[in-house]
Amino acid sequence: MDPLSRAAAAAADAADPLADYRDRFAHEDDKIYLDGNSLGRLPVATRERLAAMAAEWGERLVGGWPDWIDAPLRTGDLIAGLIGAAPGEVVVCDSTTVNLFKLVEAALDARGGGALVTDRGNFPTDRYVLEGIAARRGLELRLFDGEPEAATLPCGSGDVVVLSLVGYRTGALADLAALQAAARDRGATLIWDLSHAAGAVPVDLRGAGAELAVGCTYKYLNAGPGAPAYLYVAGELQQTLRSPIWGWFGQREQFAMERDYDPEPDVRRFLAGTPPILGLAAVEEGVRLTAQAGVAALHAKAIELTELIVALHDEWLAPLGFELASPRDFARRGSHISLLHPLAWQITRALIERADVIPDFRGPDSVRLGVAPLYTRHVDVWDALDRLRGLVERGEPETVDATPGRVT
Amino acid sequence: MDPLSRAAAAAADAADPLADYRDRFAHEDDKIYLDGNSLGRLPVATRERLAAMAAEWGERLVGGWPDWIDAPLRTGDLIAGLIGAAPGEVVVCDSTTVNLFKLVEAALDARGGGALVTDRGNFPTDRYVLEGIAARRGLELRLFDGEPEAATLPCGSGDVVVLSLVGYRTGALADLAALQAAARDRGATLIWDLSHAAGAVPVDLRGAGAELAVGCTYKYLNAGPGAPAYLYVAGELQQTLRSPIWGWFGQREQFAMERDYDPEPDVRRFLAGTPPILGLAAVEEGVRLTAQAGVAALHAKAIELTELIVALHDEWLAPLGFELASPRDFARRGSHISLLHPLAWQITRALIERADVIPDFRGPDSVRLGVAPLYTRHVDVWDALDRLRGLVERGEPETVDATPGRVT
Repeated sequence: MDPLSRAAAAAADAADPLADYRDRFAHEDDKIYLDGNSLGRLPVATRERLAAMAAEWGERLVGGWPDWIDAPLRTGDLIAGLIGAAPGEVVVCDSTTVNLFKLVEAALDARGGGALVTDRGNFPTDRYVLEGIAARRGLELRLFDGEPEAATLPCGSGDVVVLSLVGYRTGALADLAALQAAARDRGATLIWDLSHAAGAVPVDLRGAGAELAVGCTYKYLNAGPGAPAYLYVAGELQQTLRSPIWGWFGQREQFAMERDYDPEPDVRRFLAGTPPILGLAAVEEGVRLTAQAGVAALHAKAIELTELIVALHDEWLAPLGFELASPRDFARRGSHISLLHPLAWQITRALIERADVIPDFRGPDSVRLGVAPLYTRHVDVWDALDRLRGLVERGEPETVDATPGRVT
Repeated sequence: MDPLSRAAAAAADAADPLADYRDRFAHEDDKIYLDGNSLGRLPVATRERLAAMAAEWGERLVGGWPDWIDAPLRTGDLIAGLIGAAPGEVVVCDSTTVNLFKLVEAALDARGGGALVTDRGNFPTDRYVLEGIAARRGLELRLFDGEPEAATLPCGSGDVVVLSLVGYRTGALADLAALQAAARDRGATLIWDLSHAAGAVPVDLRGAGAELAVGCTYKYLNAGPGAPAYLYVAGELQQTLRSPIWGWFGQREQFAMERDYDPEPDVRRFLAGTPPILGLAAVEEGVRLTAQAGVAALHAKAIELTELIVALHDEWLAPLGFELASPRDFARRGSHISLLHPLAWQITRALIERADVIPDFRGPDSVRLGVAPLYTRHVDVWDALDRLRGLVERGEPETVDATPGRVT
């Protein structure tokens, strides 16, 4: 059988040990969704859980709080299992942006301030958080070009470095252990953004000696638009770091209200306001599905699917002017593939509007194809790329309105 | 008819123009819920809207974002109508704690730092936020005793003052206009916490010349446990204040990602991370109900209900050792009443466990009875206080486990 045939893709799906997970997500239409790296699909269990949580609010009212109050830590423990953290090292709270702000400020407060360092290609909100802190504290913001590499990581003693484990544009997977060791050797504090990595690739924070991390839950963890994010603080650091935002959910014995601030001795000291209970329930369901499938199995399938994209690109798309922007070595990438084309914006629009394929556009010239092994099939990849080549061969992108618009 | 009879209460309910709103909330049991000032009830419309939003996530996937992205401002505009703000002056985002942190830091950045001032009895998270900022910036934290009064507000030029419009313990309503004028005259920046006020009492931020405010949505606005909070920045200040947390949802032309940070020219510059879309939908439904009923009508009924509590207290409870901790003048209080009793903790437990009445305990000696005019009836107040006096007359509180526990 031709390995690039649709029959081969269908055969791979038939042999897929994760195939049953597809039915655990809502599929309201037959669109091919290759943007789970931006917003994951709705798990059926989450739909049911949200209804149950609304009922629980209605029935238990404030009496629900004794159970709800542990949700940030309980859900964090589930995430910990996906990223190589220990129980008690992760809490779910706030947004990735706010959590990154908290950890950068905490590191600077505890260790003094050198430069703030990240790659110019890091996700915008990460750069903005650092730019803001640098401006307000009068610190140097050091942006470097290219992918982060241990040998050349431009940091020294007292610096705070923020790196995404999987880059949002190319899907490049950084070397967690080597970069962590490089930062440590140079006396810098390294904070990982796991948004595009958690649930997609194996992550071993403790094995790498990672100290701090943040991440979002609405991509591969399928927790819904704007779902609460998480943060990780290695156990041995929890007593020495403090959140810059002192809030009542970080307070020890929270309901003895007449005292000065005295933060929890553990990771809960990084909580601030009242936890979003419905959002946390959605995180719990999404993470549970990922944990049941297992990151190793998900990663193995992600490799198969992204390898198929690369092979079909080489065979069908490269001759049409596409260029692979993601690492060719599967060991060096996450679960999405970026293809460059001068008409990337129009191609994205044409795929969505005429071909029922949902990719993602990232300016100026990148079409992003994300695979979510819980629900993306080999035939989805084959069909999407077949429609893509057909569109381009027929010159359809040239007929699409080139006015840039909003694509998330 | 005896004005303190149950028949009089039933007659008042029969004449209540808001009576129909009660059926727009879920009532899964016949408990008398007097803690809507801690966590409001579930609106039926919210239950339906949450299911619809989950379906919308499942169907539209990332294609939903063009509509969802405006939710923080759109929902903020609804809240603006309840608090005397103009459209474009309120956004819904983050928690009250995080929003307060943002506004205090923004004010200090823009105007220089004097002392941070609040009353010792202010809500704990407000005090903690100020305590943290004072500690990190080396500023004085000035806590004053008693309720805030314009004549004695202890602030001067460059100070940042945080006051709750309605105090969480006694329900005392501060004089918004007088305090705002006092702060302005002394050169201080005043930030209002409207958590216990919005939806319960008329609030005219613009009329008072208020500059900054925050508030939560899960009390009288019935948006659910840990629902997103809001912040208000007067239009004329929006260009001069910046959030300390620079995030991608505060960025002008957010999806042109390759630029330096350039904040939105309006209140959206105080957004940080990705907005919680399901939470925002619940806020929208809760606020819409409040807006439909109208704050004036809600306040008029709150006065009736709290006057009934005060009258029944005087008649039945004062002889049993209770003391009214809330202002006797209805013009000086919000929508909850605090009663002091040495056995307040045991009384609270007995009411919940034996009488199907849900009040709230605030240490060390306060039973809080909140009325939510959208769903609290006069007979609910009468029945609750009747059961309360019966319990105490029979000596039941003395038989309850006095071990303090968690009550939210």
